[in-house]
Amino acid sequence: MSAHINLDAYEVGYDIPAKPGMREADIQTPCLVLDLDALERNIKKMGDYAKAHNMRHRAHGKMHKSVDVLKLQMELGGAVGVCCQKVSEAEVFARAGIKEILVSNQVRDPAKIDRLARLPKISGGEVIVCVDDVANVADLSAAAQKRGTELDVFIEIDCGAGRCGVTTTEAVVEIAKALRTAENLTYRGIQAYQGAMQHMDSFDDRKAKIDAAVAQVSHAIDALKAEGIETDLVSGGGTGSYYFEANSGVYNELQCGSYAFMDADYGRILDQDGKRIDAGEWENAFFILTSVMSHAKADKAIVDAGLKAQSIDSGLPVIFGRTDVEYVKCSDEHGVVADPSGVLKVNDKLRLIPGHCDPTANVHDWYVGVRGGVVETVWPVSARGKAY
Amino acid sequence: MSAHINLDAYEVGYDIPAKPGMREADIQTPCLVLDLDALERNIKKMGDYAKAHNMRHRAHGKMHKSVDVLKLQMELGGAVGVCCQKVSEAEVFARAGIKEILVSNQVRDPAKIDRLARLPKISGGEVIVCVDDVANVADLSAAAQKRGTELDVFIEIDCGAGRCGVTTTEAVVEIAKALRTAENLTYRGIQAYQGAMQHMDSFDDRKAKIDAAVAQVSHAIDALKAEGIETDLVSGGGTGSYYFEANSGVYNELQCGSYAFMDADYGRILDQDGKRIDAGEWENAFFILTSVMSHAKADKAIVDAGLKAQSIDSGLPVIFGRTDVEYVKCSDEHGVVADPSGVLKVNDKLRLIPGHCDPTANVHDWYVGVRGGVVETVWPVSARGKAY
Repeated sequence: MSAHINLDAYEVGYDIPAKPGMREADIQTPCLVLDLDALERNIKKMGDYAKAHNMRHRAHGKMHKSVDVLKLQMELGGAVGVCCQKVSEAEVFARAGIKEILVSNQVRDPAKIDRLARLPKISGGEVIVCVDDVANVADLSAAAQKRGTELDVFIEIDCGAGRCGVTTTEAVVEIAKALRTAENLTYRGIQAYQGAMQHMDSFDDRKAKIDAAVAQVSHAIDALKAEGIETDLVSGGGTGSYYFEANSGVYNELQCGSYAFMDADYGRILDQDGKRIDAGEWENAFFILTSVMSHAKADKAIVDAGLKAQSIDSGLPVIFGRTDVEYVKCSDEHGVVADPSGVLKVNDKLRLIPGHCDPTANVHDWYVGVRGGVVETVWPVSARGKAY
Repeated sequence: MSAHINLDAYEVGYDIPAKPGMREADIQTPCLVLDLDALERNIKKMGDYAKAHNMRHRAHGKMHKSVDVLKLQMELGGAVGVCCQKVSEAEVFARAGIKEILVSNQVRDPAKIDRLARLPKISGGEVIVCVDDVANVADLSAAAQKRGTELDVFIEIDCGAGRCGVTTTEAVVEIAKALRTAENLTYRGIQAYQGAMQHMDSFDDRKAKIDAAVAQVSHAIDALKAEGIETDLVSGGGTGSYYFEANSGVYNELQCGSYAFMDADYGRILDQDGKRIDAGEWENAFFILTSVMSHAKADKAIVDAGLKAQSIDSGLPVIFGRTDVEYVKCSDEHGVVADPSGVLKVNDKLRLIPGHCDPTANVHDWYVGVRGGVVETVWPVSARGKAY
């Protein structure tokens, strides 16, 4: 059970979908269910891989937004700390006592910069933030000085995701030089996450993208070295690429997130042998539990998990362990499940593998951790809605 | 300001995006913003329409999930009460003292049925639930008897949405007969919401769908009358169809929701004159406020509203009041805004019209109500996450 929540204050079916000790069949749906055995195996596997390859693993908290899942990643998987995307998210982890926090994103709003600068005093640890614009350096420095704290900085390189990040070595060097003279800021390393390739099906296509990223990052590091600037950390890598970064000789920190839960979209990508990564590499540990609530037509069952219970940006959910029924349509409150043989009955429960884990977790307030058909834990989605 | 929340307990930038009195420019993004003037005009307009057409309006709370917005719909728009989709949602409105509640959905899980049966005692008012399966009648009756309450029932007809609801008059009559002898249950009317046609662009196409629904409902009502069963209420209608139901001579209750907020997907449908409904019929009152957080590439700005701040099931958001920039891509935490002329600067704020209002509201904890560039109210999304 979560160490920091008193579940006694919550009512099942109104505040919370279940309490420890309940049978899976009695959980109030729709809700998120974690298969704790599968989750622990995924976490241990990635931890062992990182250790064997001498890589730091900074687990991505933006995926699960959960202090409890992060603590499992640290205890069981040897993760060094967390990365997250928003200052308000970072505050959740800082308040929970996490000592190594990376905001793997830009922070530009003055109020957010001020909050960021207060974080080291809250966590008592190290806070790193990403920068892709030299104009940001003075603002971060002023805030850290005002708050009497030190911030570390990763310079973000856009190595293909097409979002934040600089695209030239010259821009990296310019920011690093500005950091050299900025009070209370320390250049710490490079953020280079290739987000756009993680979901390409082909192993070789993904490898080609990371090879290009590695070349781009190496070029920048060499140029920094020529200026006498040493790079401590090179951070990046996701569930679709971590083996490339781990063997690159350039990266020394991974930022994987989705491996712990898996989802339908990630599950479809292929490993080196052309096998889906959810068919051996990682297990589905993360589900939307849903119930049949209407079967007024013989060939379709209506389930209670629609758009308010998931994000379908990366496709519809897949029904776990079933080939006889298929989730074929999603509206606000309902899912339509094709049931050509009429095998489903009202109140039957199904486990859905969400299309995309991150924005699906963000819709829910709770994770129900299940083992052997019994609810073992109920964890808050601690940073749910922390988008600021 | 919300009557039932003490905002003093909340910290701007962590718990809450703004407090009353702040300038819109200082609101922490991404967050939901309501243009209170536009919202009030929309609400008044629908209220006036319903009154002029002698229709009850039961505002759909599943859209906004907000007690405060509902109260505005009741006070300013004459709404008789609320409909919602889940028992936990209904509990939020019941606890807020709303006397007329319709759960416009099936309730089949035993624990949910028991919670539903307790609702009249919580609200002190009337509770209606939908039924599409005669097997549900005994369960509802037993729960109401156990709790010492009365429940009213709408028989749900599937008039084209293809989700819940019976499709034949025979099935309607069968359920109504079962209700005649069921203790503590009263047959009250017909639920016939044609959800699938609301977003068809063409006015005439939508009209044809509702004409078919009206014929289907009339047939059922006549058959009930032949059995001596009178139908009090016929409820349905949405933002894309309410004028058809209001002039049908069969429906007497509307269930509109999205009209109050508007969204990009609804805005595109056409009225009788071939004009978009967001170009006169309804105003955009509902926005995601977002900030530019990176502009490292000359022709694209990265904004802070991605998949954690909205649902893109019905398309990407549209930037309000701008034709020079366009939201072209959405990932977990970021939006990519094409800015071909480089007009945007870091920390510039944009108002996004979400693709789909219902699941977008459900991601957020707060509505920031703005008038004249100043924050006037901050309302909780009261039933956010109430999906059980």
